[in-house]
Amino acid sequence: MEVLLEYQHSFEKFLDAYSFSKTPKGLYDPITYILNLEGKRIRPILTLMATEVFGADANRAFDAALAIEVFHNFSLVHDDIMDAAPLRRGMPTVHKKWDVNTGILSGDAMLIIAYQLFENYPADQFKSLVSLFSKTAKQVCEGQQYDVDFEMQHTVLERDYLKMITLKTAVLVGTALQMGGIIAGASLQEQQIIYDFGKNLGIAFQLQDDYLDLYGDPEKFGKKVGGDVLEKKKTYLYIQSQLSNNELFKKELLTIYSNESVFSDQEKISRAKQLFATTGAAQKTTEAIALYTQKALSCLENLSISNNHKQLLEGFATYLMNRRK
Amino acid sequence: MEVLLEYQHSFEKFLDAYSFSKTPKGLYDPITYILNLEGKRIRPILTLMATEVFGADANRAFDAALAIEVFHNFSLVHDDIMDAAPLRRGMPTVHKKWDVNTGILSGDAMLIIAYQLFENYPADQFKSLVSLFSKTAKQVCEGQQYDVDFEMQHTVLERDYLKMITLKTAVLVGTALQMGGIIAGASLQEQQIIYDFGKNLGIAFQLQDDYLDLYGDPEKFGKKVGGDVLEKKKTYLYIQSQLSNNELFKKELLTIYSNESVFSDQEKISRAKQLFATTGAAQKTTEAIALYTQKALSCLENLSISNNHKQLLEGFATYLMNRRK
Repeated sequence: MEVLLEYQHSFEKFLDAYSFSKTPKGLYDPITYILNLEGKRIRPILTLMATEVFGADANRAFDAALAIEVFHNFSLVHDDIMDAAPLRRGMPTVHKKWDVNTGILSGDAMLIIAYQLFENYPADQFKSLVSLFSKTAKQVCEGQQYDVDFEMQHTVLERDYLKMITLKTAVLVGTALQMGGIIAGASLQEQQIIYDFGKNLGIAFQLQDDYLDLYGDPEKFGKKVGGDVLEKKKTYLYIQSQLSNNELFKKELLTIYSNESVFSDQEKISRAKQLFATTGAAQKTTEAIALYTQKALSCLENLSISNNHKQLLEGFATYLMNRRK
Repeated sequence: MEVLLEYQHSFEKFLDAYSFSKTPKGLYDPITYILNLEGKRIRPILTLMATEVFGADANRAFDAALAIEVFHNFSLVHDDIMDAAPLRRGMPTVHKKWDVNTGILSGDAMLIIAYQLFENYPADQFKSLVSLFSKTAKQVCEGQQYDVDFEMQHTVLERDYLKMITLKTAVLVGTALQMGGIIAGASLQEQQIIYDFGKNLGIAFQLQDDYLDLYGDPEKFGKKVGGDVLEKKKTYLYIQSQLSNNELFKKELLTIYSNESVFSDQEKISRAKQLFATTGAAQKTTEAIALYTQKALSCLENLSISNNHKQLLEGFATYLMNRRK
């Protein structure tokens, strides 16, 4: 979508021109580093887009868009420490390039900088934006905690998994859009609708991430195929497969995910791929993606915006859901 | 001071009644834990006191006072991870009682909760409080970064050390007081004066902490005597001692702080104590404490508040500076 690229380019330009503090270098260099790793910029694009959709100039939304992007990157820096992840977007993570202490402290500074980015808005908008931001930021921490908790659990209920990805991923997508509504002066009701659009889209997005881990185009997906399987992540595919009543399937699942598994990484991945297909887990996942995408799109019906703008939002949803990476 | 105890008790009562979120437990239990370790509550007391000094009811300041205390404890949780500290106020640190990941994530949530605590204030005050808070929080991160940087440096200039403790410790004391000014509707000029009072008091406070590490009453100080020496911290005592032109003194300092030192812990401490006395570093430290306390007190002269209230602030400064722990 041409227009998405325009939003992205204008955001990148704003980011390039934005001047973060410089000293102490040990605190601020990692912030510039992580923000300049190539990202899809989905959240800031949504803030710009929503501002325009509700009738205001997208230029007014740059600060809020950057706040959301800085926050998102803060959460990546701290999550990567917790997951001991060596790479992010194909480059060394902050705690690998520097060290864990740097990752903690630079992350903290990023969270604070995100708050500061709202200071250009007038007091009433500032309070609305910051309150929404805090509520969401806390939910993202809760989602991360549930994700950590699930690693220790043998079984995770579908309901609990959906709650976790809603908190960890989806609420921030809704918030990115609602911020545009706040900046453009949309009513609380309209803000709620665009938030729900984003939240459902965010759930669909994460479920698709789970799906693409095994069924994505390895050339395009940009991550190692089957990474979730090797990390023994309890994704939607895993959870759906675990619901099977077939004892053989259950045993196969246990075998693949066992700590004492004798299979090579490649075998684990091909077996998981086959198992998730046979149990119908793959099919259920694509159905769930379609369901949440549909839920998102149906929110748009209740929005009093122009048809052009509805098509813009629909277009974004379609673009996001057709991605292979 | 009787009145300080009253402030402290009313703050403790507010904290006890305050209900933090409960689930996920892994995220919120550590927050309740760290906030309930016995602390001096200096910062929240200052916020309550300043609110009253500027003519408003201290009750209006409880939320801001708690925000400051939650932030202070957030910084302790993350700093303790970075310092690999096992104990805090005589109890296991969060990352020891739980683990490092819990310390990171619960700390993040605390920083966000601190921001949320300002939401009960009207939009204009909210913006003033949050902007001041963000500025200060970022400075505290910068101070922590300089502290980390200094560990790697052989020499630290007195000027740089004072800058570091100003950022890491003193600005938060100033901010605690200024918040009272904001809540009570004091002028920007009066806010600046009470901030400067607090900042200078904070510097004096930290210098005294350095001094008490070796010369405090071990019964009362509550920390292990000489802890800074054993951790090879470049405190004000160390820096002043390093300025000596006497080659013998310089050699002795190097010997005590050498990684290959053959001395027992007890010997290192008694030698440092003696060296800092002989070089005049101890004397210079008490002089600096007196200087910054005096700077703080002279700020009060420019404040248009009642004599009773001036005495209250003076009393607090005296109380703080006469502490032996």
